[in-house]
Amino acid sequence: MQRKSFDGMICPIARSLERVGEWWSMLILRDAFAGLTRFDEFQKSLGIASNMLSRRLAALVEAGMLERRQYSVHPPRDEYVLTDRGRDFRTVLMALLAFGNRHFAPEGASVMIVDAATGEPAEPVLVDRSSGRLLAGPDFKLAAGPAASAAKKAKFAERDAIVPLNPRT
Amino acid sequence: MQRKSFDGMICPIARSLERVGEWWSMLILRDAFAGLTRFDEFQKSLGIASNMLSRRLAALVEAGMLERRQYSVHPPRDEYVLTDRGRDFRTVLMALLAFGNRHFAPEGASVMIVDAATGEPAEPVLVDRSSGRLLAGPDFKLAAGPAASAAKKAKFAERDAIVPLNPRT
Repeated sequence: MQRKSFDGMICPIARSLERVGEWWSMLILRDAFAGLTRFDEFQKSLGIASNMLSRRLAALVEAGMLERRQYSVHPPRDEYVLTDRGRDFRTVLMALLAFGNRHFAPEGASVMIVDAATGEPAEPVLVDRSSGRLLAGPDFKLAAGPAASAAKKAKFAERDAIVPLNPRT
Repeated sequence: MQRKSFDGMICPIARSLERVGEWWSMLILRDAFAGLTRFDEFQKSLGIASNMLSRRLAALVEAGMLERRQYSVHPPRDEYVLTDRGRDFRTVLMALLAFGNRHFAPEGASVMIVDAATGEPAEPVLVDRSSGRLLAGPDFKLAAGPAASAAKKAKFAERDAIVPLNPRT
């Protein structure tokens, strides 16, 4: 399957997907959050071909999401650990987890985010950090940022009525 | 490229990726949030081949994310609108947007989430809805849910020390 590179696209969603949008990459990151670091651990967890796993790990290192560290000299062996940037991807994975539990787990949740003290399941929602308000319309909307092109700014201004974030229904 | 189906995987992240993990799918959903509904609008926005766009739209309809509606009888023309489930994907897209702005926008943000009244940029964070607390370790952790297999429950119990959600650094 041929894929177009999104690197030239200025959209931050497209840019994130360019680096981590391949689904194996997201599952590797998921496993890294669960504490896996070694090639054979990822391979066992994912059932992925070696050459594919090598490529995805190399791409995640290049994107600054994982760091390669040698843990054995004889024989030479590397492990892969999350960088600060990789750890910051947690929000995306937790959003995917919550979405999967809500929509694609007819038999109930198999993995949940819970309060560590009480075990009570959490309900993840996205809010604005400083005000704590839910990031949804009509309170919040998408807008052109300082780096937007003039064309993009005009486009956002023109369709102002339709870019407010839809509320969860 | 050959891909393995994740449908048999019980992980809610894998299940979400099975339905929407192809990056074109996420960009189609992004455009649907921006108000696009018609085949030619998506095609113009994405620069994607017609057959690929047809396949991705059909897959999103099948996954219950988009609904196909006829808007013209002569000639017959359909449009694609977000379902409730599709709108609920907003959290994932907003998390990807914020991540892209933080890490892959060296020249500054081109698109931002802003307060609709003041224009002030929001900082999206994931919190627990009822308590408002940040979904991060050590307050929250991942745990096996009611539908987890016995093996999965045992695995979570065993590695309890490493599944707390890492704090953002």
